[in-house]
Order: sequence, then C-alpha cells, then structure tokens
Amino acid sequence: MAARKHDERLHDRQFVRTFFTSPTAVKGEDDSAKMIRSASGLRGMQAPDVWVPDNEDATAPSMRDEGVENIIEVVAENGADFPGEIHPRIVWHRDSPATRHRGLNHLFEIADPENGAISHIDGFVIPEVGDIDDWKKADEFLTIVEKEHGLEEGSIAMSVIIESAAAELAMGSLRAEISKPSNNLERLFMLVIGEVDYTKDMRAITPTGDLPSWPEVRHNTSRGASAAGLISVDGPYDDIRDVDGYRERMTDNQAKGLLGIWSLTPGQVVEANRSPLPPETGSWLLDVGGYQVELDDEDGVQAYYGDRLSLEETASGYVLRDSSGERELDAEELHEELLDRTEYIPSMGDIVDSMEEFEAAKEAGTGAIAMERSATIHIDGVDVDISNDRMWDEATYQAAQTPITLFKDVYEHRPDQHEELAEMYSEDVVERATNVGKA
Amino acid sequence: MAARKHDERLHDRQFVRTFFTSPTAVKGEDDSAKMIRSASGLRGMQAPDVWVPDNEDATAPSMRDEGVENIIEVVAENGADFPGEIHPRIVWHRDSPATRHRGLNHLFEIADPENGAISHIDGFVIPEVGDIDDWKKADEFLTIVEKEHGLEEGSIAMSVIIESAAAELAMGSLRAEISKPSNNLERLFMLVIGEVDYTKDMRAITPTGDLPSWPEVRHNTSRGASAAGLISVDGPYDDIRDVDGYRERMTDNQAKGLLGIWSLTPGQVVEANRSPLPPETGSWLLDVGGYQVELDDEDGVQAYYGDRLSLEETASGYVLRDSSGERELDAEELHEELLDRTEYIPSMGDIVDSMEEFEAAKEAGTGAIAMERSATIHIDGVDVDISNDRMWDEATYQAAQTPITLFKDVYEHRPDQHEELAEMYSEDVVERATNVGKA
Amino acid sequence: MAARKHDERLHDRQFVRTFFTSPTAVKGEDDSAKMIRSASGLRGMQAPDVWVPDNEDATAPSMRDEGVENIIEVVAENGADFPGEIHPRIVWHRDSPATRHRGLNHLFEIADPENGAISHIDGFVIPEVGDIDDWKKADEFLTIVEKEHGLEEGSIAMSVIIESAAAELAMGSLRAEISKPSNNLERLFMLVIGEVDYTKDMRAITPTGDLPSWPEVRHNTSRGASAAGLISVDGPYDDIRDVDGYRERMTDNQAKGLLGIWSLTPGQVVEANRSPLPPETGSWLLDVGGYQVELDDEDGVQAYYGDRLSLEETASGYVLRDSSGERELDAEELHEELLDRTEYIPSMGDIVDSMEEFEAAKEAGTGAIAMERSATIHIDGVDVDISNDRMWDEATYQAAQTPITLFKDVYEHRPDQHEELAEMYSEDVVERATNVGKA
Repeated sequence: MAARKHDERLHDRQFVRTFFTSPTAVKGEDDSAKMIRSASGLRGMQAPDVWVPDNEDATAPSMRDEGVENIIEVVAENGADFPGEIHPRIVWHRDSPATRHRGLNHLFEIADPENGAISHIDGFVIPEVGDIDDWKKADEFLTIVEKEHGLEEGSIAMSVIIESAAAELAMGSLRAEISKPSNNLERLFMLVIGEVDYTKDMRAITPTGDLPSWPEVRHNTSRGASAAGLISVDGPYDDIRDVDGYRERMTDNQAKGLLGIWSLTPGQVVEANRSPLPPETGSWLLDVGGYQVELDDEDGVQAYYGDRLSLEETASGYVLRDSSGERELDAEELHEELLDRTEYIPSMGDIVDSMEEFEAAKEAGTGAIAMERSATIHIDGVDVDISNDRMWDEATYQAAQTPITLFKDVYEHRPDQHEELAEMYSEDVVERATNVGKA
Repeated sequence: MAARKHDERLHDRQFVRTFFTSPTAVKGEDDSAKMIRSASGLRGMQAPDVWVPDNEDATAPSMRDEGVENIIEVVAENGADFPGEIHPRIVWHRDSPATRHRGLNHLFEIADPENGAISHIDGFVIPEVGDIDDWKKADEFLTIVEKEHGLEEGSIAMSVIIESAAAELAMGSLRAEISKPSNNLERLFMLVIGEVDYTKDMRAITPTGDLPSWPEVRHNTSRGASAAGLISVDGPYDDIRDVDGYRERMTDNQAKGLLGIWSLTPGQVVEANRSPLPPETGSWLLDVGGYQVELDDEDGVQAYYGDRLSLEETASGYVLRDSSGERELDAEELHEELLDRTEYIPSMGDIVDSMEEFEAAKEAGTGAIAMERSATIHIDGVDVDISNDRMWDEATYQAAQTPITLFKDVYEHRPDQHEELAEMYSEDVVERATNVGKA
Repeated sequence: MAARKHDERLHDRQFVRTFFTSPTAVKGEDDSAKMIRSASGLRGMQAPDVWVPDNEDATAPSMRDEGVENIIEVVAENGADFPGEIHPRIVWHRDSPATRHRGLNHLFEIADPENGAISHIDGFVIPEVGDIDDWKKADEFLTIVEKEHGLEEGSIAMSVIIESAAAELAMGSLRAEISKPSNNLERLFMLVIGEVDYTKDMRAITPTGDLPSWPEVRHNTSRGASAAGLISVDGPYDDIRDVDGYRERMTDNQAKGLLGIWSLTPGQVVEANRSPLPPETGSWLLDVGGYQVELDDEDGVQAYYGDRLSLEETASGYVLRDSSGERELDAEELHEELLDRTEYIPSMGDIVDSMEEFEAAKEAGTGAIAMERSATIHIDGVDVDISNDRMWDEATYQAAQTPITLFKDVYEHRPDQHEELAEMYSEDVVERATNVGKA
C-alpha cells in the first residue's frame, strides 16, 4: 500500500457547505418518491454540496423498504445531472443487530450496478454509530458489498452521524485506526453531528425543550475531522423560520472550523451555501456596550444612529457618552477610542486584494507588509477619520486563505453556481479569487 | 461471562439527583457521630438519592478511624430505613500508598458482615483517583474485600471523584477498560466532579479565589458517564446562601447531561431533588435585550411590566421600543416579532399531555404531529394573541423523555417522596407520568 | 531507571509566566543578530521566564542558517548572564521530512559544545508537531545530538507548539507515552499553543479575520500539561496596543490553569510577568446589571459613581434602582442585597494574611476557620457597612496556594526581579510570602 498522510483529504471535495436530507418515501402521496424526485432537480445555490436521500429518521420505519426502491429509481434517472454529491443515509444502530442487518440488505440493493444508481452515488451515511469497532462493522459491510458487486474496494465513501458519547470519543482515535490494515476506514468522508439523538444519549435537559448548544462536541468533531483528513458537518437547525439564528449558528461553527451544516429546506441550503463564503461588500462594526453593531454605509461614511452611544463636540474637545458614563476626549484620544471600538469585516474583493498585495510583496522579497484600512465614522453629526494598519506576514496570509480555498473548491466542483457567484462578487473578483493563493 | 452492553446501566438507580455528604466524626461533640446520625434520619425531598458518610475531606484526618466506627454504628442501626442509597467515602490518593493502604483497612472494617453495616451499603466513593491504573487498584481492593468477607464479587459499587487531570483523561478510556477480564470495573456507578481539588491540580487561579466554572470537565464527565453506562454528578456549590446560583448551576449542568449534583445541606438536597424534574406550572419567557424575562401569569394572560420594552398602539399599527431603538409594526409583524421573542417552559403536565398526544397519533399511524401552543401577551396595556406550532416526530418524542424517565426512576425508588410529588403535580399527573413513554 | 511520578515536575522551573520570542536573523541590518542581541540584555520584569530565539516563523526562511550562527554567537556571549531560561525554536514540520532534517542539522550545530552556546541553553522548542510518533522523532534527534556531543541523555529539554488537531489529541496520551522505555520524552517541558497555525489547520473562519478564542484547546493543553507534569503556555496576542485585551486573555487563561503566555515585546513581557501574581492592593467589585464594576477606594470607603445603579434613602427604608426596575428594601435586605452583589479581590498581602491565620489555627488544632471581610459601600451618598465570612478549610487553603507557590518559584529563580517585587509588595509581604505555605 502506498504511503499516505492522513492530513491529506482523499475525496473529490475538500469542503462540504451543505448536507441536505430528503425523505425517501412519503406515505399517502400518489408518488411516494415525490420529495427526493423534487430534491434531485435542485440546481445552483439551492442545490447542496451533499444531498442525502434519507432512509432513516426522515422516513417512517414502515416506508423504508419502499424508500430503497425510490432511491434507486430517482438516482438512476436524475443522479447523473445532480450538481452535488449523493450520499444516501441508511438504517443502522450500534445497539441493534437487526437494524444493522437491514442496513446491509439496503446497501446491497442500492449498490447493485444492475439497478443503475450506484454509479451516481458517492457514498453512504451511517447513523447512530457507537465506538470505533461499531464503525468498523459498517466499513466491513461496505467492503463486502463492493466485492460482491465488483466495485473497487474502498471506492464507496462512508460518513457517520455522531449522536452518541461513544462516537464522540471514537473520533479521538480515528487517525490511528484509519491506518490499520484490517479495515478500509480510508473511505471515511464526513463526520456529521446529530444533536437531537446526541442530546437523548447524553440525557440532557433544557427547560424549554430546545437543544443545548453543545460547544464541546462541535469542537471535538471539527478536531477529529481535521486530525484524520475528514470533513465536519453540524446537525439540523430545527427552527426553519429563524434565519438569523441559523446564520449565527453557522458563524459560531465556522470559528470552530466546522464549515458544513445540515439543511432541511432549499431555503436553508441557500443560506448555508453562502454562509462560509466572504460577503459581497465589506462592513464596519462598532462596539456599543459590549455589542457589535454594524454601521450604515452612506456613500463611504460609516454612520451610527443608535441611542446607546452619543458624541458631542465641545469647545475643548469631545464628550462621548454610553451606559457606563461620559468621557471627555481630545481629538487624538477620540481617534484612539474609535479605533479600539471598530472592526472591519472584509469582503471577498478585500481579501483577494490583500492576498494579491502580499504575494507581490513576497515576490519582491518582503516578508511582512502593513495593510491599511481607513474609514470615516459618523456619530451624532460628528465625523471622525480613523485609520489602522494590520501587519500581514506568511502566517496571516496562510490563515486568511481558508475562505478562498473553500471558494476555489466550490468553483471547481459546482459549475452550476458560477453564474450566481459572478452576480454576487463580479466576474473580475471571481476570476482573481480563483487565481490567488498559488504562491 | 454473559455479554453486556456498556450503554446499559447496571445499577438499581438510573439517575442520581443528589449526592449528600456528612462528616463521619466531629470533634468536641458528646456524640462524634452526631452529623451522620442526623443525616440518616432524613426522609422525603430532604433525603438524597445517594447519601455519602464522608470519611475523607469533611472529616478531620485525626478523626477518621473513629469515623469508620461511626459509619458502622449508624448504618447498622438506621441504614435499613434510609430511603436513598448509601455510599461512604473512604480515604484514597493516587500519590500516596500509605493513604491507599489506610483506605483498604477502612474498607475491610466497614464491609465486615459481622459489623452489620455492609448489607445496607450500596458502594463506596473513592476520592483523588489518578489514571485508570489507579482506579484499578481501588477496584482490586474491593474485589479482595468482597472475597475475604464472602460477598458476591462485583456486588459493591464503586464511584470516583474526578479531581485531577489524569482522572479526567481516564474517563475517555473507560468504556474499553471496563470490559477487560482482569478487573471488576463493571462495579463503577458514579463519576463525581471535585472542583476544589481539581482546581488545585490544574493550578488554576481566579482573582477572587472563586472556583472556575470548568465547562469542559463537566462535559467530559457527562460524556464519560454516558459512554460507559454510568451516572455523572457535579461537585459541591460552596455558597450555601446563594440558592439562585445553585439553581443556575443545575440548569447549566442539565443542558450538559450532568443531572446530579453534590449537596452540602438538607436545604440544598431539596433544591437538587426538585431541579431536574419539570416545573409544576408552565411559564412564558420574553426576550428583552438579550435576557429571558419570565412573564407574569394573570388569569392566563402573560404580562410584561419591565421598562426595557414598551409597546404602543397607534393609528396605523404599533410601535415597539427597546434599547436598540424603535420599530413600527403592523398587526402581523407584531405577532411575528412576539412569536420570535417568546418561549414556553412546559410543566410536567404539559410534557405528559404532549407525549400522550404523540403516542395516540403514532398508534393511529401518524409519524409527526404539530403541537400548538397559544398565549395572550400583555405589554403596556396592549394584548396580543400569539400561537405557534412545533412539529413532534419520533426524535422529538424520544428527546423529550429524559425528564419523564428520570421521574419514573425517582417514583420507583423513592416511595418516601410520593406524597410530596403528588402535592406538587397532582395525583392525576403523577399517575399519567408513570404510564407514559412505554410506547 | 528510578521510579518517577509524572505528576512531579522534572525541570528547574515549576512555572513559566512568559515565553518571549525574538527573530534570530533580520535582513537588511548591519548586525542581523540585532534583535536577539538586544533581547539577551533584558533584565528584571522586562526579562521573560523563557526566552526563545526564534529560528522558525519570526525569521525569514532564507535567513535561518544565519540565524543558527547568530544564536550561537549571542548565547555563547550573553547566555550566562541571562536571568531566564533559554529555549531556541528550530524548524520542524510533521509533513516535511526535509524540514525535519534541516532542524536536525541546526540542532547539531547549536548544541555543539565547541560553539560555546549549549551550556547556557535549557532546551529547544519544536513547532508544528503532529501526533505522538512525530514528537518521538524530535525526541530521538535530541537523544542522538546529546550522544554525539557527549551531553547527558535527556538533559536537553523539549517543548512543543500545539498547532494542529493531531498534536491536540496527542496531549491525551502523553502521560502513558512519557513512561515508555524507548523514548526520552521525560525531557518534555512546555506545551505551547500556536493559535495562528492551529486556526489554519482547523480551517476556521471568523468574519473579521481575528483568531477564534479556542477555549477547548486551551483547556486541553492545560489538562495535558497537568496530567504529564508539564507547563502550559498560551500563544501570541497579536494586538500589541491592546493591553486590556491581553490582560483579559491572561485572566481567562489563569482560570483554566494556563498560567504562561507568549510575549512579543518587552512591554508584553512586563504585563505577563505580573499577571499571574496577586495584585498589590485589594479591591471590591460590584455587580451592576451583570457586569463586575470595580469600586473606587476612597479612604477605605468603596464608592460607586456609575449611573446604572442608584440608591435612595426613604422614610421607610431604601429604594434600589437598576435597569430591571426598582425595589424597596429595609436595612437588612439592603445589606443582604449588597453582600450578594459584591466580591473582593484579595491582594498578595491579604492572601498571605489568610494563609498565616489558617496555618496558626491548624497548628492549634482547628480544621476550619471563618475569614471575615468587611467594607463600607457608598452609593449615591448612602453608606452601607457589609461584612461576610468565608469558611477556610484544608481544601480552601490548598487551592489558595497556587499564586503563592508561583510567587515562590519566581522568587527562587529570578533574583533579578527581587527589587521590583519588593517595590510592588513591600519587603515584609515578600518575606512572609516566601515563608508561608510550608505547613
């Protein structure tokens, strides 16, 4: 076996933004495959990076054999044209040999080349896994299915749902286990958190019945994925009406390196496809009483119109008031104060500009350069110009690349989104973004 | 040895709400056993699920041999009638062979059937454990004591105090270690955090000398317990006057699956016995400036009387003001806004109602139903009716069961609390709660 | 090999407050060693506990061979007089055999006794380590270098930068790995977090490009150090102007047991050398709307002059107003309310007083004593005397010792700071602090 590094990702996609599940068989409809048939037609920003015909929790237990038939029919027919990857979820449970056996039978049927679906399927999602020996059982079934169906060993990807404490702990030993000769765990692709069942397994309680936020399991999943060359994905966000909450969750996840998230509707897919990409335009934030408030851009002037911070020009200088009291400041102190209170969120174009500038400097032999950022801040009729330098060195440059690397991964694998990306960012920024970062 | 699943709990109790320690021997009293004699008489909500005659930190080192005699005397006399389990804490230290030897001698004496206490003792608590090999030393001592005293091997439960980094890490390998043939670690019952000594072992410092909140060790303990079929318990809350703080800590713990907590007084026992059980009556929360404020129920109308949010009816609609400014809303927008800002904390009766409703629907062949929740919100003289649907499917139903499963465990094992539970919830709700969830 | 406990620290220093890096070779200067030459002259509070001539990220790749020469020259000349330890950082990367080989060559050269530097060097810092097998490669190189250069095996300390998920996970198995006979990992000294590259390895994104706060990796590093008898150090704080932010970060770290931090300038060294030591004077905190506000000490009266809390004396008692509304209180209720809202941050002198008092009580046979703390709180012209008792027992006493143990470690190893410490705390407090805690 050739040497491999587990830090290298083995699969086509290096990033998965969206994991969209659809029930495979719905009772009481003329066409029980209605939901997956409709999902298979999604394109552009509405189409997920990974589509999951869900033959487990989203589908009633009595409908799951029919669900297998529906997956085969719809994927055989529409799978070739689907722009994302296809990873059906089958039934599995660490505590139920019968469920695992049923999962094996479903795998055999879906993966049968004569049924015409497997050539469009990238892998399978295994829910309710336990410790690493349980993961190996699913891996072994996939190996057997591959052998019996004449498919290349290890060619079917396997992703798991982390919804038990045992599975959370298993992620700590993944890097060592993947390289053992008696398994094909190199097929592992995504580690997906399943917070509903995890909450049940952990026996957690909240007064309202809402899910706990589980910061530690999200960290541990991101870390487990990073250490083993896999991709981490957060679980479903149930409150579909709450778009702001979904966005906040994604921002919080991204700061943990957890760049993918489950989507329950095409509307959530659009949000989640956009979220890890840099914004179209930059914006300024002002710290007001511990909150970050986005300033209104008015022809390049950044204005604050809230009532929690006020600024007044006096004969001798300025008076700045907030809920902690008032302070008299001279012009320089005011500049410093506003510099401390403001932050800039760069746009995609800004990031590309900075990277190009750093690359040019590096080529000219300079290892670190100052990136300047200026703005005019407008509060209560007073305008204050602020300007700040941030040093960029190799490490800053490398760390800034993640959203650009993600963008390039999207651009390479999702031509169906090119048009929308060009509309968002302009053709020029898109082209420069695909070229930057090769230094 | 018969196969076992480590996700299954091995002990009588599936839940421990309260872990109440009493000094075993107090200097300068006529009766040095006064504290444990008094504790052995606790009944009802004042009696803990687990009572710990504490022959370690709560008792002066010079009094600990006398403490052993006191434990034997009081437990032999009153243990049969004590409504909770009895788990004395003995001396132990990962770094001190002499302390461990003393612990062994104390075990031998307390567990001697001729002394009449061991038949009422469910297990022992081992403090200051280190890595898993240190846990095995304590387990081995219990095995020897069982053998020499003619007790069934593995019949004495063992619980440990997690108060070192080594012990925290050991919890990650527990699931695998428990099944090894050379130990009897299946006797493990509770993982109890000891934050004071943990803080010392980690060499942590806070400006005021208060304990750090240690969210990660609480997560890791809950996870370790869940993965190995054990029960997790948080450490003592020192500020006995601060009932609100104790309650907040328990709510935070419960969201981590850490359902038990140490209690230092019978008053804390009452709080901690009630805390993981659903409330007697439901209540509405309103989000005001990022805080959740409980609304006043006035004959079914939910009223807000604070001054951080105001609502005014105008000719064209409504004006809603808070610290971030004011917004004009029409009736529908106001409804949406209040829907977003409110949450409901269901009572025990509400949870039982919802579960019964879902069970009936499932029996009738429906896999998911909408649970409606309505209220009239009253702000500044304006009444607004809001109504929300929440989808319940199998997963929601399963996740909602934890407090009910806990209630049933309490109801089965604590007949001394039946009367108080019926007073809290009504006979009807109690009876229905014990019957729901068997579907 | 003699038995050892991994809870015992093996090195001279039990604590490292400051880890100060300097570029080893700067391009375009007459003296490319200028930065390390200047750093080697630091003394007193400006001198770090650990000085790191940084031949990795702080130095341009093309300058690193020259950097090795500079380290040798400057350390041979000035190393004997440097008051802290000296641990150069060499090049290393888990994914690059060529980089590791270059690191080996640099080690051979710097550690050559004929070059005169190694006798002043305490160890080396290895960046970009991966899993534990990668750490062993660096350890093996050090063993070979020691052998070939006639140095005692294991005498060169090794510290690592945790900047990958694999390295974070490796810390979980350190305790077991250190004791294996085929390595010399007992040489391990510091675990240092490198958040910039860790963020890149985890592929994390924040909107502004700021580093995530990574609470979990900080906990895991502190825990890994504690379980293996090592010292944990947090990574660099880039915003050098932001002294308040640096202090807040250190306070947060200290509550995790992470007592050391990287410093990028002598100014940061001063801050970081002082931060884990108790303050020179005590202060009172008042909880106002969830924030802890430090009260102004005016001749022993603790005054609040903010506008978020007001107090008024009325005919029948007092009215206390804050943003959540107003409450009427009688004198006793007001006393209770202020007691709940206040906390005291003890000075070094206060801690020494309390420890001496407890030690005296213990010697007299008392296991627990009440420490009283009183103050007069002044709000809106009303003076309220409050007084609180806190129980101190052996555990409180032990936990309170960490800052004193740290102080004693500093006092023993850093005579160059004696004068500044005596100025801060007075000769009397310094002397008593060095004598307390031996009970």
